[in-house]
Parts: sequence; C-alpha cells; structure tokens
Amino acid sequence: MLIDVKRAARMLKQYDDYLILSHANPDGDTLGCAYALCGILQKMGKRAKCLCADEVADRMKYLAEAIEVQEFEHKTIVSVDVADRKLLGALDKVYGDEVFLAIDHHGSRTEFAEFTLVEPDSAAACELIYEIAEELDVPLNDKIAACLYTGLSTDTGCFRFSNTTPRTHQIAAKLMEYHFPYAGLNYMLFDMKSKGRISLEQDVYDSMEFYADDKIALVCLTLELMDRHSGSVDAEDFNGIAGLPRRIEGVELGVTVKQKEEKVFKISVRSSEKIDAAKLCEKFNGGGHARAAGCTLEGTLDEVKAMLLPVLMNAIDNCD
Amino acid sequence: MLIDVKRAARMLKQYDDYLILSHANPDGDTLGCAYALCGILQKMGKRAKCLCADEVADRMKYLAEAIEVQEFEHKTIVSVDVADRKLLGALDKVYGDEVFLAIDHHGSRTEFAEFTLVEPDSAAACELIYEIAEELDVPLNDKIAACLYTGLSTDTGCFRFSNTTPRTHQIAAKLMEYHFPYAGLNYMLFDMKSKGRISLEQDVYDSMEFYADDKIALVCLTLELMDRHSGSVDAEDFNGIAGLPRRIEGVELGVTVKQKEEKVFKISVRSSEKIDAAKLCEKFNGGGHARAAGCTLEGTLDEVKAMLLPVLMNAIDNCD
Repeated sequence: MLIDVKRAARMLKQYDDYLILSHANPDGDTLGCAYALCGILQKMGKRAKCLCADEVADRMKYLAEAIEVQEFEHKTIVSVDVADRKLLGALDKVYGDEVFLAIDHHGSRTEFAEFTLVEPDSAAACELIYEIAEELDVPLNDKIAACLYTGLSTDTGCFRFSNTTPRTHQIAAKLMEYHFPYAGLNYMLFDMKSKGRISLEQDVYDSMEFYADDKIALVCLTLELMDRHSGSVDAEDFNGIAGLPRRIEGVELGVTVKQKEEKVFKISVRSSEKIDAAKLCEKFNGGGHARAAGCTLEGTLDEVKAMLLPVLMNAIDNCD
Repeated sequence: MLIDVKRAARMLKQYDDYLILSHANPDGDTLGCAYALCGILQKMGKRAKCLCADEVADRMKYLAEAIEVQEFEHKTIVSVDVADRKLLGALDKVYGDEVFLAIDHHGSRTEFAEFTLVEPDSAAACELIYEIAEELDVPLNDKIAACLYTGLSTDTGCFRFSNTTPRTHQIAAKLMEYHFPYAGLNYMLFDMKSKGRISLEQDVYDSMEFYADDKIALVCLTLELMDRHSGSVDAEDFNGIAGLPRRIEGVELGVTVKQKEEKVFKISVRSSEKIDAAKLCEKFNGGGHARAAGCTLEGTLDEVKAMLLPVLMNAIDNCD
C-alpha cells in the first residue's frame, strides 16, 4: 500500500525496535538513509539498528558514526532505497518477506513491503528521510546531517546530474547549517583515486576503441585485464570504468564490454541526449534508463563486438 | 570606497551606458557575472556591453546568449570578479583607471575602483549579482539564470569545495526554478575531456614521481612534454594538471613543476588539511592559499627538485 511522508512519519512514531535494511552493493544513498533514519529513531528514544548484505566501503565508514550500536530483537523492518526485494542480496531470503515499510525514490520498482513511501521525483531517498525528520519534528545533529548530505551528493554526482532539483539544493542548504566536513567528504567521494584505479584507467584508455568518427568509444574489460588489476582495485573501481568512454569530447555513445565468463559479456551503454540507450539495449533484450542502459551478450569478444557495432553505428547514423 | 549590495543596486539603477569588464583568462564566474549583469541592465532598459582581454573558451560561449549585442559609447565601467586591476590583462592600460564600480568576492584584493562591493564569504561573485537583481527587483530569465548558475558551479567545483555555503545552495535552488540545461552544462564544464587532454594525463601519470611513502606526488610539465601535446590541448588543460597529483589516495602534497623557460620553473603545491601550502611556498618567496599555493624557482630541473624536495619531505615529517 502506497503512503505519503506524513503517514510514514506517523508509523515510525508508533512502532519500535527497528531493523533498517540497505540494498546490497551499498552506495551513499542507501547507507546515508539507513544511518540517518536509525540515528533519528534513536533520538526519539527508540531502538534501531542497520543491516546490509555487503560490506561498507572504507570511505563510507564515517556514516556509522551517526548511530549507537544497539543489540535487541527487532520487531519492525524498514528498507531504504531498495527498489526490489532481490536487491537486498543475501538478506532477501531472511527478511525480504517481512518488510513493513519501504522508503524509496525509484520510478520503476516491484512492491514487496506492507507499506511503501516512494517519490520518484526525489533525487535521493535521503530527501525523504529529511522530510520524515521534519514531519516528526526531530532536530538532526551533525552526524545525521552528514549522512543525509552524503545520500544527496552521491546520487546526484555532487549536484551535477539531471535528477538534481531545486528541492535537492534547498535540503543541502539546510543540512549545511550543521557542522560536518562536506568538502573533505566530497573530496573522498568524488575526487580521490587509488594508484590502482589510475593504473586501471591508464590501461583502459590505452585499449579504448573508437568508431563512427569518434562518436562511439568502446572499452573492453576482459577477464585477463581485470585479473591483472584485481590485486589493487575493488569492484567499485571496475564499475566506475563504465562512465569513462562517454566523458570524452564528441563521444555520443560510450560502451563498456565487461567479460563475465569465457563467452558471456555484460554491455553497459551511456549515451548523449541524442540517443536512447534503453531502446538500443532493448534490441538485445536489455534495458535501463534513457542515458544509461545495459544488456548481456554471448559469444567470443569478436562475435559480441560484431553483433553490437552495427546497431551502435546505426544509432549514430540516425541521431542527427 | 566600500559599499553594500543595496547601494550598488541603487547606483546601477541611477547610471547608464555600462561597460562590464571580466578578468583576463576568464573563468565561469567572471563571465557568468558579466553576462548576467549585462542582461539584467538591458532588462532595465539600459545600454550595456561586456568586454574581456582574452577569448572566451568554446564551452562557455553559451553565456553570451543572455545579452543583446549593443553598440554605444560607454559612460560607466563596472568590473566583476576582478581582485586587482592587473588582472584585467590587456584591458588594464585602457580602462584600469576608470572603473566606477568593482563587484568582487576575493578576500585579498587591491582597490582600484571608485566604489567596491566585496563579500569574501560569497563562494562566487555571481552570488552578489543575484543579490543585486533581487534588490533591484528585476526578474531573471532562463539565460541569465544559466549565467549565474555557471558562476556558482564553476567556482565551487559544482558545490564540492569548502567555499560552498548554505547561501550558495539556496541561490542554486532559486536559479533552478528557471529552465536551462544544468546537467548538460555541468557535463561540459566538469566531466568532458578532449582526447588530447586524456593523452596528456596519460603522460603525466606515467611520469609521476612519488616520495615520502607516496605522501608526495610530483609531476614535471617540461617544455618538451608540453610541446609534444601543444597541438591537441589548450592552456586550460595544462593548468588543470596541477589538481591531479593531490587526487591520488594517500597523497598529502601534490606538486606540479611547470617549466616556463630553460631554467625557470613555476611550482604549484596542493595540500591536505595537514599542511599549509602557502607557508611552504613562502620559504621560496611564493604564497597563496592554505590548500593551494605556488612559487617560482630557477635552475635546471634537477636543481629545482633538489631545492624543493627537502622542504616538502620536512613538511611531511612534521605534519602528523
């Protein structure tokens, strides 16, 4: 059942002993939501704890400072920024059936909770947690503000992307009235790169292929290449590569071909406004968003490229 | 004479036939200010035009859409985001003496105008232009909003840096009520890189030197290296390199040694909060800000490094 912020706030006030679930491969928004909501509930005198199937990256460990670790038997499960119970990862089996309240901002989702608060126009689910705190009239503190700010900034590429709204900036302004090292956090979240990541990017740029008058840039992350770097980079670094080809001036289609098994490749497509990446990937039974989509292809790398390239070239031919 | 926003607005209302000057090597803030103020004055029925000593980069040419090109004899000169008349570049000789009103946000500046409006707490001078428009009660339009947003975003690294304030976000929220392609602009201003720039960065990373347990990263932009890339990158690309070394995880001091002549090198130092870059550069008769400073050294590259490195290492030894 769909509910609004007011009702969600009333419910959170009514119940107790909360277990808050983040999605697997956690990002700044799902973690920011979880720790902020947990901190807010604890400030209300309730018991609350957070759980995620996967480990929190080192550079996001500061988020946990917003809460006090509490041991208790949970009674009420809330999920944050989870669009589908499968995205709970290993926690789906244990808790996927029992989610009481889902708080989310994804436009396309499958319902799994008893009650759902979803606002697809919110840039980050953290915007909803902020609104819930306002509705509950619970003042934040510096650590909770840092959590909510992290969700806002990570889901919008630090206020860069098209999902950013006036409301996002308004909330950021309110959060910045608290004291937390936002510039240091942004440096860590957006600017800092490990030496391993730089070496990976070097390799990626060296092997980048260009087609259609440099309007298509294609990167192949083969098992061999990933193996070579696996000691010095993490999964997030490999995922981050998908954004690189499209950042090159003049490139309309940035494509990353990532080898999953000997003959299985995951394709990630990023596009300019001129091309619908989702429609393009649908031709290969994939999908996603207009500017970022994906699909899976089987065959050798050469076979996969031979399937992909004519479709990409055709999209370029028809885009002007 | 120092004046406030109210008085500056009153003056702008009173006079006419404006020439608005940007600083040389123009950035998004000085140009955003100039075109926005020009557009605002034109909306008030006044005559106004913009001038800058240097050419506007292609990716910022959209700013000029906020104004109508007018030919007339100017009577009143306003400078925007100019901390010192010398920064007017080639325009200093012609107009440096005649600036009526300077609108600026630099903390350290030398006065040159008859009246000066300066607010060092503003992240961008565009914040002041916004406030002037509010005071004048002139509604903006989409193009003017895009100019002001550009100043805000470029001077704060898209709301990332420590100069960003709640007020910056509040103004961004108001500007985003207008319609302009902020995500596309941010992509162009912050994410897009030319193939030439990428090739330059490849070279820079390949030749990067590390000292003091990787806490110092040093880049040498020799005349030879710059020459090799000069066909495919511009001055801004070379300047942008200074930010790279400090972005590497664990690096406390990022140093760029840029050759100006055979035996003259310009040193740029970026530091973490642990080290005062300005104090460090003062040892070589340089200066700047706590996190970004510079100096000039003479000698061969090896001699310059031999002067520099002991001081850098010493700063690292004393920083923990």
